[in-house]
Amino acid sequence: MNAAIITIGDELLIGQTIDTNSAFIAKALNKIGIWIKRRVAVGDLKEEILKALSEESRTSQIIIITGGLGPTGDDITKPALCNYFNASLIVNEDTLQNVKAIFRKINRPVAEQNLKQAEVPDNCTVLQNKRGTAPGMWFEKDGVVYVSLPGVPHEMEGLMETEVLPKLEQHFSLPFILHKTLVTFGKGESEVAQHIAALEAVLPSHIKLAYLPAYGMVKLRLTAKGAAKEPLEAELENRFSALKELVAEWLVTDEDKAMPEVVGDVLKAAKKFVATAESCTGGYIAHLLTKRSGSSSTYKGGVVSYANEAKERSLGVQHSTLVTHGAVSEETVIEMANGVLEQMNADYAIATSGVMGPDGGTPEKPVGTVWIAVADRSRVKTIKHFVRFNREKNIEVTAQYALNMLRLFIKEQEG
Amino acid sequence: MNAAIITIGDELLIGQTIDTNSAFIAKALNKIGIWIKRRVAVGDLKEEILKALSEESRTSQIIIITGGLGPTGDDITKPALCNYFNASLIVNEDTLQNVKAIFRKINRPVAEQNLKQAEVPDNCTVLQNKRGTAPGMWFEKDGVVYVSLPGVPHEMEGLMETEVLPKLEQHFSLPFILHKTLVTFGKGESEVAQHIAALEAVLPSHIKLAYLPAYGMVKLRLTAKGAAKEPLEAELENRFSALKELVAEWLVTDEDKAMPEVVGDVLKAAKKFVATAESCTGGYIAHLLTKRSGSSSTYKGGVVSYANEAKERSLGVQHSTLVTHGAVSEETVIEMANGVLEQMNADYAIATSGVMGPDGGTPEKPVGTVWIAVADRSRVKTIKHFVRFNREKNIEVTAQYALNMLRLFIKEQEG
Repeated sequence: MNAAIITIGDELLIGQTIDTNSAFIAKALNKIGIWIKRRVAVGDLKEEILKALSEESRTSQIIIITGGLGPTGDDITKPALCNYFNASLIVNEDTLQNVKAIFRKINRPVAEQNLKQAEVPDNCTVLQNKRGTAPGMWFEKDGVVYVSLPGVPHEMEGLMETEVLPKLEQHFSLPFILHKTLVTFGKGESEVAQHIAALEAVLPSHIKLAYLPAYGMVKLRLTAKGAAKEPLEAELENRFSALKELVAEWLVTDEDKAMPEVVGDVLKAAKKFVATAESCTGGYIAHLLTKRSGSSSTYKGGVVSYANEAKERSLGVQHSTLVTHGAVSEETVIEMANGVLEQMNADYAIATSGVMGPDGGTPEKPVGTVWIAVADRSRVKTIKHFVRFNREKNIEVTAQYALNMLRLFIKEQEG
Repeated sequence: MNAAIITIGDELLIGQTIDTNSAFIAKALNKIGIWIKRRVAVGDLKEEILKALSEESRTSQIIIITGGLGPTGDDITKPALCNYFNASLIVNEDTLQNVKAIFRKINRPVAEQNLKQAEVPDNCTVLQNKRGTAPGMWFEKDGVVYVSLPGVPHEMEGLMETEVLPKLEQHFSLPFILHKTLVTFGKGESEVAQHIAALEAVLPSHIKLAYLPAYGMVKLRLTAKGAAKEPLEAELENRFSALKELVAEWLVTDEDKAMPEVVGDVLKAAKKFVATAESCTGGYIAHLLTKRSGSSSTYKGGVVSYANEAKERSLGVQHSTLVTHGAVSEETVIEMANGVLEQMNADYAIATSGVMGPDGGTPEKPVGTVWIAVADRSRVKTIKHFVRFNREKNIEVTAQYALNMLRLFIKEQEG
């Protein structure tokens, strides 16, 4: 069972919008055993949309279309669908009521353009959008299912979960696709690959191994496909255990989790709180820790001590330390960590100070120099790193290193 | 002149990776007048790659391929390219030296797999990758240019800038594509559309208008295409001025800038510093302000006062305020803003406190309730919002609202 995703919109072709919808849709379909064969993005041009629909329907039995359903003049998807299915637009009464109700709720007048959102091709099944005005639409033609969804991620996601997935499961009898993912930290892709080459060589054809490197981490994913769930699960588990053993030394987690989640889980299990003192990462570590729900049981707070003045005033870093060693130094991050530990009344602290670029480097402390400290009430550990990307990625990498350092710090203590 | 982007990798088809490369490539090509006609993502399967190459070359004169060039066994791009161009792999001496040099620098042994990265199809021009081991490759066949780039964003970006764009400009004689973008805040897409309908209706066919809504903002972009630069610029400027006038009331900026950049520019021009006191946004506003370079001249620092204890200890919020009005209240954000203003010795402060969900709501303060304050030494403004997305987007929206509030606060003062 193959699916194709067609995303529509000039904004995707000029790079003004990053397509996050496709990843969401792919993940959701995968969970119910549907494999994405191709993803295609086309512009707001009727002939391009028609071409994509006809091409993709030759090799996929499910076509998911997103984008181009808004109320404005540049939206072209509905006319193209009418053309493709030889249908005409009619007003869908449920959708019309939904549009009116939404505008009542936000206390704004319903524009003519909004009313037009209630018009749908006469051969479709309407999928009600509880999060917005543009409805989802389900079509069937020559054994292929076509689903058209609005491009606003929040609305598309709601429709996928409540309407599309249940309907697809009902419509098709689906095979099983199982994934098992583990995360390693500190070794490069090729070193990891060499280390597990023998295991990879003997994998059966229905189990695939993929490498997903990102900022010091390498994710390894085994994917198995089959008709029966239990034997497939057992076989996958078997291979996965062997893989885990091979990379045990660098293993962060044997689940598909991001580093902040892993660290959050470790803190939660230990019933401990962390605080952050950030200079170069500018609040990004705090954001990573707080964007997951439930973070109030592991995170107390932090200080973004961007200016030197802030390091002194908010964290009690000694003026003499800053003068003698500079803001980017082992001495400073130690005082920052101890300062925030005390101020936030936390169990652990993370502190960062570095030169993220593109400016601000000196001969002794070039762009990319970063000091990290992790501490509790009795111990402190520091490390100096060089990060070599652009500013935004340097912040990301530094945050990941710092979080991994805290993870190891807690593990050492426990072990 | 059309281009197609082909991205290769199973990780794109199962949704484990979000494709940011395509947006970067599209933007870069657009700047030199090349329009992306289609973007296609395929898995690590030779026949799928071959099919995509042959299909896209029928309608595009430039094909940019990314991904599948790493050192590991699951990389399939080079064999597919050999097949497509009827070429064989040979060792490229410059690339071999580059691979060895990189491993010397990071003090790791060169694995057999890494040496293989120096092998390239014998009919390509090698584009040296200064940021990694996998080289870029340039092919020409039947009037079509094919460029294959590694999938690691940082490496792909370096190759695009230093190698691909200059070579494309040399190879083709290109038309001009010009974009002008403005950003509005506070009105919905359809209201904006209705307001400017008359202008949109009379646009000539070589100038297109696009709506890009995002979290309270609507970006409007005019795109013009033509052979001669000067008349095109004049015509676009003309239409753009008219558009600007029409939306003047909601205008944030007449450049393609994000809100943090606009606020940073306003602060820089006024030579003022801001500080942040964040509860529900958890450091995200600090991150938005500090991820742009040069932020040390507009941002002093902030406190992420996540726990109530932190609000008292770090920002001097009165215990009685928290008890009487709660953490999510006008009184609390006012004290937070005043506290951080004082502590960070800043000119302006932003404070946020709210319930971002999915848990933590109460009947009086349901999920989505958020209070924001902006203040200087003599004034304070507050607002209560309801945000209605998932946790991550609620944080994003709240941050955008808060930054826009500061922008208006400063403007009012100046005006």
